[in-house]
Amino acid sequence: MYLINIIATFVVKYSMVKYNFMKKNLLTVLFSLFTFMQIVYSTDVEQYTVFEVSYTGSQVANPFTDTQLSATFMYKNKRYTAEGFYDGNGIYKIRFMPDQLGEWTYNTSSNDKNLNGKTGTFICTKASKGNHGPVRVRDTFHFGYDDGTPFFPIGTTAYAWVWQGDTLVKQTLETLSKSPFNKIRMTIMPKNYDVFINTEPFCYPFEGSKQKGWDFYRPNPQYWQYFEDKVFQLMKLGIEADIILYHPYDNNKWGFDKANPEQNLFYLRYAIARLSAYRNVWWSLSNEYDIMGKPNEEWQKYGNTLLTLDPVQHLRSIHNGMAWYNHAEPWVTHLSIQTAFLQDIQKWRVTYQKPVVIDECVYEGNVATDWGNLTAEEMVNRFWITWCRGGYCTHGETYTHPKNILWWSKGGKLYGKSPERLAFMYKIMADAPTTGLTPLHTVWNKETYLYKDKDYVLYYIGNSQQSGARLYLSDKANYKVEIIDVWNMTITQAQGTFTGNVEVPLPGKPYIAVRAVKIK
Amino acid sequence: MYLINIIATFVVKYSMVKYNFMKKNLLTVLFSLFTFMQIVYSTDVEQYTVFEVSYTGSQVANPFTDTQLSATFMYKNKRYTAEGFYDGNGIYKIRFMPDQLGEWTYNTSSNDKNLNGKTGTFICTKASKGNHGPVRVRDTFHFGYDDGTPFFPIGTTAYAWVWQGDTLVKQTLETLSKSPFNKIRMTIMPKNYDVFINTEPFCYPFEGSKQKGWDFYRPNPQYWQYFEDKVFQLMKLGIEADIILYHPYDNNKWGFDKANPEQNLFYLRYAIARLSAYRNVWWSLSNEYDIMGKPNEEWQKYGNTLLTLDPVQHLRSIHNGMAWYNHAEPWVTHLSIQTAFLQDIQKWRVTYQKPVVIDECVYEGNVATDWGNLTAEEMVNRFWITWCRGGYCTHGETYTHPKNILWWSKGGKLYGKSPERLAFMYKIMADAPTTGLTPLHTVWNKETYLYKDKDYVLYYIGNSQQSGARLYLSDKANYKVEIIDVWNMTITQAQGTFTGNVEVPLPGKPYIAVRAVKIK
Repeated sequence: MYLINIIATFVVKYSMVKYNFMKKNLLTVLFSLFTFMQIVYSTDVEQYTVFEVSYTGSQVANPFTDTQLSATFMYKNKRYTAEGFYDGNGIYKIRFMPDQLGEWTYNTSSNDKNLNGKTGTFICTKASKGNHGPVRVRDTFHFGYDDGTPFFPIGTTAYAWVWQGDTLVKQTLETLSKSPFNKIRMTIMPKNYDVFINTEPFCYPFEGSKQKGWDFYRPNPQYWQYFEDKVFQLMKLGIEADIILYHPYDNNKWGFDKANPEQNLFYLRYAIARLSAYRNVWWSLSNEYDIMGKPNEEWQKYGNTLLTLDPVQHLRSIHNGMAWYNHAEPWVTHLSIQTAFLQDIQKWRVTYQKPVVIDECVYEGNVATDWGNLTAEEMVNRFWITWCRGGYCTHGETYTHPKNILWWSKGGKLYGKSPERLAFMYKIMADAPTTGLTPLHTVWNKETYLYKDKDYVLYYIGNSQQSGARLYLSDKANYKVEIIDVWNMTITQAQGTFTGNVEVPLPGKPYIAVRAVKIK
Repeated sequence: MYLINIIATFVVKYSMVKYNFMKKNLLTVLFSLFTFMQIVYSTDVEQYTVFEVSYTGSQVANPFTDTQLSATFMYKNKRYTAEGFYDGNGIYKIRFMPDQLGEWTYNTSSNDKNLNGKTGTFICTKASKGNHGPVRVRDTFHFGYDDGTPFFPIGTTAYAWVWQGDTLVKQTLETLSKSPFNKIRMTIMPKNYDVFINTEPFCYPFEGSKQKGWDFYRPNPQYWQYFEDKVFQLMKLGIEADIILYHPYDNNKWGFDKANPEQNLFYLRYAIARLSAYRNVWWSLSNEYDIMGKPNEEWQKYGNTLLTLDPVQHLRSIHNGMAWYNHAEPWVTHLSIQTAFLQDIQKWRVTYQKPVVIDECVYEGNVATDWGNLTAEEMVNRFWITWCRGGYCTHGETYTHPKNILWWSKGGKLYGKSPERLAFMYKIMADAPTTGLTPLHTVWNKETYLYKDKDYVLYYIGNSQQSGARLYLSDKANYKVEIIDVWNMTITQAQGTFTGNVEVPLPGKPYIAVRAVKIK
């Protein structure tokens, strides 16, 4: 029964091997076949990877809506429900990401007798190296993987990179693989914005056409398969996919933003069913939500849908344009803020008791707009300010390009000078205490000063040029003090050891941080 | 009767000639004598200058408090009351600044029969070149002199410059005379702050001593004469004296901040009586008022005292430390803000319908503090941002100095690179339309964009590096467009004329402004 189940009705995806089948070169096909063989003859599923089961359902008028399918996954006293989805050609699928090691069982519920009451078992095996599970909120204001490993976001944005064609998509993934970025903001829908982007995707998210209208109750599986493969590629690179479910950049080109609330709820459930088993998913309900003109109650309903239907409980947020969202709502796990002004981060932390991510603080670039004109110095500066105020920052790049390929929306190559400095910064972040690190919080806060008790101080002076830094250290301990040049990426130890309230000489130029670490 | 009054009891000060008597060299003495002769034989008083009358009063226990003296000054149907003050040696004085041309009369009231019922007349003559009267609020958000000439503040701070000794005082005045600064923030009381200043003044504002205590009801006329002479020197240079009445930088060195509310009200009345006739006075009730720990009701009472007792109705404000003052109070004529963050200026304009002056936005310098560490670039940048958001900014300089002479508190010399750029900026300000100039105000305001209808646009891109600027001009007019490099102080006209929505190429580096002016 056990083996029959496996062979007759299951396709267990081990690290999404299906994708590899699509590749053309022989070596890959051979490798994939080998992997597939492993899976068919094994019910092992690696922790935090996608377990998938497929069934053939009965014929109905609209298989996306007429057939309901879900499965309950059980581990000891834990139970999770994952909704299934129709993937075309008569095939229904259910995906699930197991997090506990050992035996799991599941059974299905459906209004289609061919899909109802199916059961099965699999063994969840230990995560392989580099697989730490989905990212969660850690220590109120920070992030960590499910296995407890801290996660320090160094985000970037390439909103519609998925829909720029295979060549550019490949280049984007290559660029990412060599970059410091471990999170990328990206839209499910294509993007049409200003003079910068209006790329036609090779297929559409729904059946229909702009002329005849879209059938929002009939998603196009091809579109979703292509998209989720990109999420998977990011997962292999260890990059979180901060998936933007809605955005206001259709501008009447396609009309994908014209679905009604009922249709939107269907879309959300479909997205959750398809994507939530990928461990690297974050839900960004909308980019610049307020520009879409929906009432707040609608966003709240969508947010709560993510909260209730996602069995993995991925991070959830919503990104503002001009209007502020009520981040106190329970479905919001962290703030995903657009602002060019960073001084309120401490206040937001106190108010919402959630991590603060500045997901847009203007991009490094030189386009003729106020949202894409930062120098690399200022981009790096904003990362440091944000971190030293207790938040996390996100990059984007908008240099004018002969073929209009701006990283910010299309991906491709990076031309800016900030990424290598962000890689340098990441090391400083990773070296800091992982718990108890607190930003100084005064109302009169010109400073960016992180500390942990009397163990650690990091004071960043921004674009100022002071010739010394005052540090308030314990007079009962000795400290090693280092001068960090965040632009030139050097760390220089100050002569001697320090104790008590001290003034450390600085080079008197911008983009310097001082770090004091208690000598044990 | 008329002439007798003049000769017997009056000393009419024409442009404060008394000061000149104090000078030692012969030419000056001769010139002063000549001027004095003119005055004694004339009752002419130049508009907006100090008219002063002196009387000898009866002997009382405390002439500062036991004798009340005031005068009503009348011009046609206008009546103003000025309080008199005791100036030592049995002499009481009343000062008044006439603003209307022609004949004025006055009479005194006192509880001392020797001072009561004195009357007189004088002729107010037209202001000489460069004398435009006191500065007032103009066009809700701006400033202008009493004669209607616009005033564009380019302020600086040298808080305790008056009390640094004659040599440094002279140097400060020389420096100011060659600077772009037309307003200076300065304290009546000496200052003791951190490692930077604790200069002992050559005399004290009150009788007494730190050891025996100060008699807050017995001001020291010598102290005040010295101070008001400096106000007069500034007036001759065309510089507004933004006089700070209270400050929290005594730090137990002298104890001048320990007066009780009753004593403070006496001090305020004394200051108003002595100083209000100087046309260049602005009242800054306190620096960093909240650090002084007085209840708000107390500040309100002091502010209302300025409002009701100052016959000239000089500008009045109060400067914050960490806490926000209620600038909506009627006595507050303009906002005098400390902030390192400038993006709320438009909001404050809308809220209070008053001019916004950023009187401290951190100083140019390199001391080891977060309040005195700006690069010159950033100081200039903040001036431009402030102006393009509809406010006015104030400079200060805090470079470390071998003798610890920091301009910010002691005056002396300027070493920074911002002043010449502020002089350049002043020309751009003065060339802009004097009425109807409005900052763009969106909630999502990364921009600094000033405009007047379809006549004038000034767009400042700050420390960004965009390669073009989008201007939204009328398509029914032609415009001349200029690229202003605010750091290198150049103005370059863009080729051709412009109309409608245009994108003007920019050099793609920070500190650039674009100006479009409609061609008539």
